[in-house]
Amino acid sequence: MKRSDRLVAMTNYLIEHPMELVSLPFFSSTYDAAKSSISEDLAIINKMFQSEGIGFLESFSGASGGVKYIPKHSKKRSEEFVEQLCKQLEDPERILPGGYLFMSDLLGEPNTVRNIGRLFATEFSDLDIDVVVTVATKGIPLAYAVASFLHVPVVIVRRDPKVTEGSTVSINYVSGSSRKIQTMVLSKRSLQEGAKVCIIDDFMKAGGTINGITNLLKEFNAHVAAIGVLAEAEDEEEERVVNDYTSLVQIKNVDMKTKQIEVVKGNFLLG
Amino acid sequence: MKRSDRLVAMTNYLIEHPMELVSLPFFSSTYDAAKSSISEDLAIINKMFQSEGIGFLESFSGASGGVKYIPKHSKKRSEEFVEQLCKQLEDPERILPGGYLFMSDLLGEPNTVRNIGRLFATEFSDLDIDVVVTVATKGIPLAYAVASFLHVPVVIVRRDPKVTEGSTVSINYVSGSSRKIQTMVLSKRSLQEGAKVCIIDDFMKAGGTINGITNLLKEFNAHVAAIGVLAEAEDEEEERVVNDYTSLVQIKNVDMKTKQIEVVKGNFLLG
Repeated sequence: MKRSDRLVAMTNYLIEHPMELVSLPFFSSTYDAAKSSISEDLAIINKMFQSEGIGFLESFSGASGGVKYIPKHSKKRSEEFVEQLCKQLEDPERILPGGYLFMSDLLGEPNTVRNIGRLFATEFSDLDIDVVVTVATKGIPLAYAVASFLHVPVVIVRRDPKVTEGSTVSINYVSGSSRKIQTMVLSKRSLQEGAKVCIIDDFMKAGGTINGITNLLKEFNAHVAAIGVLAEAEDEEEERVVNDYTSLVQIKNVDMKTKQIEVVKGNFLLG
Repeated sequence: MKRSDRLVAMTNYLIEHPMELVSLPFFSSTYDAAKSSISEDLAIINKMFQSEGIGFLESFSGASGGVKYIPKHSKKRSEEFVEQLCKQLEDPERILPGGYLFMSDLLGEPNTVRNIGRLFATEFSDLDIDVVVTVATKGIPLAYAVASFLHVPVVIVRRDPKVTEGSTVSINYVSGSSRKIQTMVLSKRSLQEGAKVCIIDDFMKAGGTINGITNLLKEFNAHVAAIGVLAEAEDEEEERVVNDYTSLVQIKNVDMKTKQIEVVKGNFLLG
């Protein structure tokens, strides 16, 4: 196969298999080329991935060696994306009763969701995450986007047990904003004991829901290595119960009377 | 920029932007090359996408011309994937009370979900779908996977209204299997009047849920152009209320006593 043909095929293969170790012999036999040619191809791909701001190839030497595509959103791309997100969220049409913001349209765009996933994966790619956990419903697409870049499975915590989940573990927790006792359930066979977990959700106020997930995960002896929320907002009535988290945007002021919203960059990229 | 560099960057760009018309001048200015060189690049990419079985580039001539990447799973790749899915589902460990199958682990794998999405997108790419609709919870990741390849947004029907959805339209319907009256709600501002819709769900028995979604969509004057379900199963007690659909796999027999499951290819690829 010619170099130009190989570059297209290998680029596609690497993008489709992020965080997966691919051996040089695999490329060599699949695309019928000498290892030295493959090495040169990979150098070109690595250079271009970096200049396009989508990550880089990590090389592993030795018998079990090869390359791994590490997706990383460049700082420039990340900042541009988050700024645009803030602007979109400041649209006064989004204000709902209770000072909530309508975000379902943004969360319904696969491209936006994929970019959010790439940002969190960029932040968490060094943590050896085993699984991404979220709670139904709005966090689900974000969780899958993060998981696809980290190359790990997704586990969904539910509010209600369902027959198709098999036996479940459940906990009760107090929701921060409504002060109501709520239930969370997780299928017993969905999570391995001692897994290293990243929690993803769309929105956090006091953090009651995320705290609930953390408590539920304790029943599985899971270790929460990272928490990522798309948007955080302050809760005037209650102190935050979750402190160590990454947010992309922060909803500062929602003024129902003047229909003004202020949305700023979250604590992402500040560390 | 050299051809080898351009091929990597353009391959990535096209894969990230399926079903989007990209003009030749855009490539020409972004990658600093003559239109004739870009045309040659695109010919190489098109050839390789086809030989890799991931789709092809469609060319549009004229002033507003350019290329569009149409993702298509090759028949060979599709059949291999569905066969493997059938085998995985035949594992007796999956049997749950009531003859249901545990599928959450498979639906938790981003790669599997993405492949399922690619298959449905392959089937529905000629239908000019405006939006993918699903119902919470298990259909959500599949809907996003399909939508990402069709380059359209996702709209999620819920079982319960939530403050963050704004005003909603709701309907009651009778669930086929439980015969209970259930509710479905859809945010008023989530769907444009007259949209051409593709419904995606993970599982269908008699089709009560899908029928419910269809009725809810009538309130928005939406046109249901396609229905895709990952797995279909027969309902012994009730006749199917949905007839025109595409399924990837069909769960034939679940024998609780002998712990045997038979899963075969659905009606996909038969048309």
